Amino acid sequence: MVALQIDDYGPWTTTPEPRRETDLQALQSRLFATVADFFARFDGYAFADRYDNMVGVANGADPAVFERLQTQVANQYPVTVSVGVGTAGTPRTALEAANGVLQQAGSAQDADRTEVHDHRVVDDATAGTVTIAHFDVVDATGTLTDRVSSAEAGHTIRRAVLELREQMWERHGAVTQFVGGDNAIAVCPSLTPSTLDAVNDHVRETTGVELQVGIGRGPTAHAAGDDAKHALEHCRETGERIHAAFSLVER
Amino acid sequence: MVALQIDDYGPWTTTPEPRRETDLQALQSRLFATVADFFARFDGYAFADRYDNMVGVANGADPAVFERLQTQVANQYPVTVSVGVGTAGTPRTALEAANGVLQQAGSAQDADRTEVHDHRVVDDATAGTVTIAHFDVVDATGTLTDRVSSAEAGHTIRRAVLELREQMWERHGAVTQFVGGDNAIAVCPSLTPSTLDAVNDHVRETTGVELQVGIGRGPTAHAAGDDAKHALEHCRETGERIHAAFSLVER
Amino acid sequence: MVALQIDDYGPWTTTPEPRRETDLQALQSRLFATVADFFARFDGYAFADRYDNMVGVANGADPAVFERLQTQVANQYPVTVSVGVGTAGTPRTALEAANGVLQQAGSAQDADRTEVHDHRVVDDATAGTVTIAHFDVVDATGTLTDRVSSAEAGHTIRRAVLELREQMWERHGAVTQFVGGDNAIAVCPSLTPSTLDAVNDHVRETTGVELQVGIGRGPTAHAAGDDAKHALEHCRETGERIHAAFSLVER
Amino acid sequence: MVALQIDDYGPWTTTPEPRRETDLQALQSRLFATVADFFARFDGYAFADRYDNMVGVANGADPAVFERLQTQVANQYPVTVSVGVGTAGTPRTALEAANGVLQQAGSAQDADRTEVHDHRVVDDATAGTVTIAHFDVVDATGTLTDRVSSAEAGHTIRRAVLELREQMWERHGAVTQFVGGDNAIAVCPSLTPSTLDAVNDHVRETTGVELQVGIGRGPTAHAAGDDAKHALEHCRETGERIHAAFSLVER
Repeated sequence: MVALQIDDYGPWTTTPEPRRETDLQALQSRLFATVADFFARFDGYAFADRYDNMVGVANGADPAVFERLQTQVANQYPVTVSVGVGTAGTPRTALEAANGVLQQAGSAQDADRTEVHDHRVVDDATAGTVTIAHFDVVDATGTLTDRVSSAEAGHTIRRAVLELREQMWERHGAVTQFVGGDNAIAVCPSLTPSTLDAVNDHVRETTGVELQVGIGRGPTAHAAGDDAKHALEHCRETGERIHAAFSLVER
Repeated sequence: MVALQIDDYGPWTTTPEPRRETDLQALQSRLFATVADFFARFDGYAFADRYDNMVGVANGADPAVFERLQTQVANQYPVTVSVGVGTAGTPRTALEAANGVLQQAGSAQDADRTEVHDHRVVDDATAGTVTIAHFDVVDATGTLTDRVSSAEAGHTIRRAVLELREQMWERHGAVTQFVGGDNAIAVCPSLTPSTLDAVNDHVRETTGVELQVGIGRGPTAHAAGDDAKHALEHCRETGERIHAAFSLVER
Repeated sequence: MVALQIDDYGPWTTTPEPRRETDLQALQSRLFATVADFFARFDGYAFADRYDNMVGVANGADPAVFERLQTQVANQYPVTVSVGVGTAGTPRTALEAANGVLQQAGSAQDADRTEVHDHRVVDDATAGTVTIAHFDVVDATGTLTDRVSSAEAGHTIRRAVLELREQMWERHGAVTQFVGGDNAIAVCPSLTPSTLDAVNDHVRETTGVELQVGIGRGPTAHAAGDDAKHALEHCRETGERIHAAFSLVER
Repeated sequence: MVALQIDDYGPWTTTPEPRRETDLQALQSRLFATVADFFARFDGYAFADRYDNMVGVANGADPAVFERLQTQVANQYPVTVSVGVGTAGTPRTALEAANGVLQQAGSAQDADRTEVHDHRVVDDATAGTVTIAHFDVVDATGTLTDRVSSAEAGHTIRRAVLELREQMWERHGAVTQFVGGDNAIAVCPSLTPSTLDAVNDHVRETTGVELQVGIGRGPTAHAAGDDAKHALEHCRETGERIHAAFSLVER
């Protein structure tokens, strides 16, 4: 997992005077788009997360490649980014390692901590197969978008995604991100269908939202995620709630 | 309030085959950046919301101007957008009216419903003064970003923002959006300090997160929001939890 | 006319080390796209020119609006821009006045000359009607693009545009820019058809390239230019070489 | 060499009505920026050329990678691109081969010719070492930018670049492109200093413009071009007119 952080961003947004909100929104969004396009080079995935802190997965890419991203950002944007890379047995542990790289180098609001770039490997782990679970809300358009206000649809979907991401993180070591619309993507360790069943049950019980999920596995996030998207299409067509693009045997 | 919706986006993302996730993430983000820059023309504010559904406020702009945005999007992106504008006594009612424009014109996934553009006025309301409340988390960097994993910081901040936006919507008719980092912005009806005190109390009690908030009022979102940003700076400097850039008398 | 110049750009591109060429190309192009979108606010036109020096026309816009563009650029890019605005009897004199604003403020490579913004009016001129002439090469696709190498097509078209812009500048006080493909746009003073006939004759005689041109006139560059585009469509359909969207009487 | 062409672009810009010029300018520029960022993946170079026809060099990249660029463009822009790749003994012959791929597939304005992608190898050539010559105008800021109008500076620089590119193409089989400011970059076959001396002499004699040039050689355009940039810095510092980052022996 890769943790990306805009250096000293909070102070920059208010120095010397608070900057116009729409300029910041546009800056953050385009910067993330650049990051997303960069991860695409390696068939990776990137997530906007909180915008000042972004998350990526690029199994198979040499951690050194992110120096190139840092240079590109410095050449094209008014801010710089730090990059921590973590390799570990689960996405959670890997992200914690990646975050640790940045935290150990100094505060996110330390003006002297700029363009950090480091890689931390936990327990000699190596980047192996990626499992992606792609969730969406069953008939979100019919039950939410076309029916209630966008604010209420937003509350409902965000609440479901929040329950989902906390469960996936706490119980299963997965990193889950909202990716727009009614979609969320989890970078998972190997999971069994009964695990995902239980997670979907939890979300339904706590928020009333019915999720469906497609699962893929592959050497890269894109390979796994593309299979997961096809598997989710299968759910949409058949009404199945959980579908894996590969044989998902209970182990 | 303005409701913007990418036309028939869900189906497009999977036709003829699911499109690469990073391409979609980059597309959504740049499209929103274009929308944000457009709202800046009118000293407005724009929010990415769910990306396929965006929200804006542009008091003082003639609703007809959004036809120009629709043309720009059609000329620069592979998708089109529908725009509903609502004018009403509170931001909530205005957003509901804006959403209603789109919902009444057809489903978000109706291939024949393209580039809808209409304006709905509730009870002869006119676009008047805007009140913006700009919230952030007290010492988010010290307590979250520099300390826990980005996933946990994300959970905590998202949970706080979710409680905040639901309270503000349900109880006070405000439209609240996460805008990156640990920031949320609410487009509010006139509010009293005791109201905001109660909201912050609620967030603290339900999530453990301490918010501070700067409030501004003006003829446009930017005018109000810029004052709110300065007021929030005042909170950061003094430790005050609520500060208004104008005289916020109890009424 | 508006002259825009990236501040101290040359030195920046090589400090501390020469920056990667593709990063610079992408930066310049996106910065110009931001400028073009900004001029669209005022129904203006913008031209990339040499990228570090851009040109715009925004009749009817208060020169003060460009401070907003300067702030947006500073908020979204790693460079800043200076802006000179000139108002005069012809586009040429207006551009010279706009250039003069910048030149008088200091060198383009003076690190201390940053975000200059001023307006110069020549002889109490006021921004009035704009005349736009939109040229393209007769059957460029059939005779060049589909037939010779892109390099040779490029030479031919660039040579024709160069003759065109020099003639238009030297003899007729017009500012002419290549806008992609086989298109060039001239911001003109009032012109007669016989003038344009003579210009097209000159280009044909010196370069062998046959141009056609549509002309429009209006309160803004977009109004005039849109009429010019329709007039050029008329040429494409009828074989006419010069067509004006308005009555172009010899005076 | 790589030839990129927006499919059926001319007709698209005027269908159903002529599209707003600034929207097209911004579209073209951002599309090229995407292309430039894409070529950076492979340490390549990309040039905007006429915008509807772009040029790139990506020695060492498998021609199949451009399918990925085509998909990205289709996912992020309202237009599609065709890509021809040519490998040959000189940049000129390679570009001609790349153009030939597209021309043979159909007209640039054939609505049915979409997303062509093919590779043509001339005489079993293989992509080897790249030579980049990076030219600029001696003291362009002092003699042009700060002194004459931007239009006149533009004429002068464009005329010099035009002479340069024609000479380099006709006599030396090089592909030369203007890259902004007073810079031009040539993708060259192996060249001797006396050749470049003669070219610079020709440009001075025909246009009065004094050029200086740095030359680099390497496995990729970026490797060669970065050396060329350093060599050009050497010229700027020492007053030398031609400097090679490698031993440029007369052969």
